Amino acid sequence: MVRDASRVETFSDGVFAVVLTVMAVELLQNGPARDPGQALPDALVQAWPAYLAYVITFGIAGQIWLGHHNMWRYVVRVDQVLVMVNLLVLLFVAAIPFTADLLSDNLRGNEAEQRLTAALYLGTVLGESFFFNVSWWWARRHHLLHPDLDPRLAAAVSRRLVVRPLLYTVAFAFVFVDPILSLLLYLLLLVGLSLVRRPGDLPRAAEVAGQVSGRDR
Amino acid sequence: MVRDASRVETFSDGVFAVVLTVMAVELLQNGPARDPGQALPDALVQAWPAYLAYVITFGIAGQIWLGHHNMWRYVVRVDQVLVMVNLLVLLFVAAIPFTADLLSDNLRGNEAEQRLTAALYLGTVLGESFFFNVSWWWARRHHLLHPDLDPRLAAAVSRRLVVRPLLYTVAFAFVFVDPILSLLLYLLLLVGLSLVRRPGDLPRAAEVAGQVSGRDR
Amino acid sequence: MVRDASRVETFSDGVFAVVLTVMAVELLQNGPARDPGQALPDALVQAWPAYLAYVITFGIAGQIWLGHHNMWRYVVRVDQVLVMVNLLVLLFVAAIPFTADLLSDNLRGNEAEQRLTAALYLGTVLGESFFFNVSWWWARRHHLLHPDLDPRLAAAVSRRLVVRPLLYTVAFAFVFVDPILSLLLYLLLLVGLSLVRRPGDLPRAAEVAGQVSGRDR
Amino acid sequence: MVRDASRVETFSDGVFAVVLTVMAVELLQNGPARDPGQALPDALVQAWPAYLAYVITFGIAGQIWLGHHNMWRYVVRVDQVLVMVNLLVLLFVAAIPFTADLLSDNLRGNEAEQRLTAALYLGTVLGESFFFNVSWWWARRHHLLHPDLDPRLAAAVSRRLVVRPLLYTVAFAFVFVDPILSLLLYLLLLVGLSLVRRPGDLPRAAEVAGQVSGRDR
Repeated sequence: MVRDASRVETFSDGVFAVVLTVMAVELLQNGPARDPGQALPDALVQAWPAYLAYVITFGIAGQIWLGHHNMWRYVVRVDQVLVMVNLLVLLFVAAIPFTADLLSDNLRGNEAEQRLTAALYLGTVLGESFFFNVSWWWARRHHLLHPDLDPRLAAAVSRRLVVRPLLYTVAFAFVFVDPILSLLLYLLLLVGLSLVRRPGDLPRAAEVAGQVSGRDR
Repeated sequence: MVRDASRVETFSDGVFAVVLTVMAVELLQNGPARDPGQALPDALVQAWPAYLAYVITFGIAGQIWLGHHNMWRYVVRVDQVLVMVNLLVLLFVAAIPFTADLLSDNLRGNEAEQRLTAALYLGTVLGESFFFNVSWWWARRHHLLHPDLDPRLAAAVSRRLVVRPLLYTVAFAFVFVDPILSLLLYLLLLVGLSLVRRPGDLPRAAEVAGQVSGRDR
Repeated sequence: MVRDASRVETFSDGVFAVVLTVMAVELLQNGPARDPGQALPDALVQAWPAYLAYVITFGIAGQIWLGHHNMWRYVVRVDQVLVMVNLLVLLFVAAIPFTADLLSDNLRGNEAEQRLTAALYLGTVLGESFFFNVSWWWARRHHLLHPDLDPRLAAAVSRRLVVRPLLYTVAFAFVFVDPILSLLLYLLLLVGLSLVRRPGDLPRAAEVAGQVSGRDR
Repeated sequence: MVRDASRVETFSDGVFAVVLTVMAVELLQNGPARDPGQALPDALVQAWPAYLAYVITFGIAGQIWLGHHNMWRYVVRVDQVLVMVNLLVLLFVAAIPFTADLLSDNLRGNEAEQRLTAALYLGTVLGESFFFNVSWWWARRHHLLHPDLDPRLAAAVSRRLVVRPLLYTVAFAFVFVDPILSLLLYLLLLVGLSLVRRPGDLPRAAEVAGQVSGRDR
């Protein structure tokens, strides 16, 4: 049955890999070289929202992949519902490049456009983190996790997972102040969240080293 | 020899992953931001068939992936014919985004256009489910399945697999009444089919839990 | 070391999966719905070379994947050169959609255009099959294959692999008679080559069944 | 824990596979057939920078994949930081098609355009090789490598990895002489670097053969 979880991972990895590179394809196809009347440096500078969208999408999708990777390490079997909820997670993940691009295209628009696109973007990320929470909750509730997983650790992971949508809402609130500030705050939260040590994370290098040297003794 | 089945899965997963995300790329590239004279909310609302096509394609391809996943769990070795029939399944799967997009583009066209594109779309899905049935039938007939698989279960799976093309034909009939109604019915059937318990599905969570607790005793 | 061959396979599978679906993306983006003045059926009929290119590319890339799959079953370790030759194979594989599309676009052009694009297409396929032959020859010569592989079988595979570029040249010759006839002949050769039993193929279902029933006794 | 490293590989392989084929998609979509007034041979000849960009991107990304493959063979476990640094490597890898395309588009531009795009391209490759060095350094420092790995070999690999960014800088210097010469030099370095024997490479075929025959005795 372990094979099942492994195939869900392979499949999800494929979706993540395409999502991460889709923005690069977009850069490639809407490159600034197409406007011959304009000087190249100006064209490149003018396209900065596209680069920002690329980096942010990469950061966000990379972060989600990392969370997905961390969670699925504990999953030893899957049922129909877990696979479907995972598909819903991927549905929102795959929509991130679209909403991120929409957002970056409208960063210099009027306030209504900025708010609308930011709301769409955030809706995508919230949808993803909502169904991600559901998938963890379902896997935990239906005994699909590794039997040796400490229930207290599982509970701590549950609490931690709820934090992410909440923080996204904070970033969302800042959209109404300044959308670019909000995006930078977002990026900061992403990097911050992945550096802060939390239960359920991959073990710290020091511990692993300790285990290894412990094993050597 | 198990490795063979596993590589066919990896390869198929790659195709499924690209198909699932292709519609998102399409959203990205035909984003409504390109029409500068139009207000953004109007542009977004006007593009609703593209979103519908995205969600439906994701649903359909996800459902097919799930069926593929369920079937290939039982396959322990492959022969030349099974691999080629699987390629034919993938040929139709990879065409789904194209016909779904064509359909969604013509939802507001005249009746002849709606019927033509719905027929093309359904042809794609029928082709996929036809060759999927062939692949199961071939694997079963040529002893490529796991030797411990209960023959009655295999027969039940065969009967169940035949149901899908039939239901697709029902959805097709509704196209002549109202194509949008037909698409919604389609989506409903997809969700319904994957929630209803059928032989050959991944085991229900409760059973798995029972097995786990049984093993613990 | 087996892991190395396995990662080369995963990576190659990714390239094959994208190549197979790239033509579907092309269909999607150059859909006939973009020409509003034209009736939909006419537009669809007029786009037939694109569908032909899709089916042929799928057939060709699927066939190459099958050969790749068959060969790499025997490879148990890799060295630097084998990996690089495999990259060259993939370089030509990834170019197939481009040359196939170019060919299909010029099927109704003048004779010079037909010949030029057919030559480019064939150059791609010949390049692929040449480097594929090199990769098999290298793996065989440098003892990278499974030690239990019968040397006579390996020699037979070598002879068989040389047949493919020769048959491609036959199909090429027909381009000067009629390019469409040539493409159909091509497709026929592809299907024919994969149905004919040859050494090094995946075992026939009957034999596998024999082995299974033999094992059961 | 081995599974973790393996999933990072699968995911990275997906990104590499898309990057390698993205340029082929670009060829497909900007095919020379779209300019009906022009003769096909002229159109094909005129598009040579796109073919050069395709081959170079394939070569560069293939080379990076090879280095990635070589390094990750030694990694037996991962921590949060290693995964994130690997994501940064992939961020730059995924940007290579964009900057390579930008470079090839401006090869016939004025000197300022050539320098700017060459600088961007080199920035991408330097960024990739910088973070690749960081990931190796981190894995080595935090005992994430295979415990049996000879420390002297690990040190030699470290020294070798530093060479690549330095050589890239040499190629960069030639951009100010002649960008096309620089690209050819680049390609030469790529091929040269992967043929020269270095510590940490996959073992030479002869040695493997020696081991095999040694094992047979």
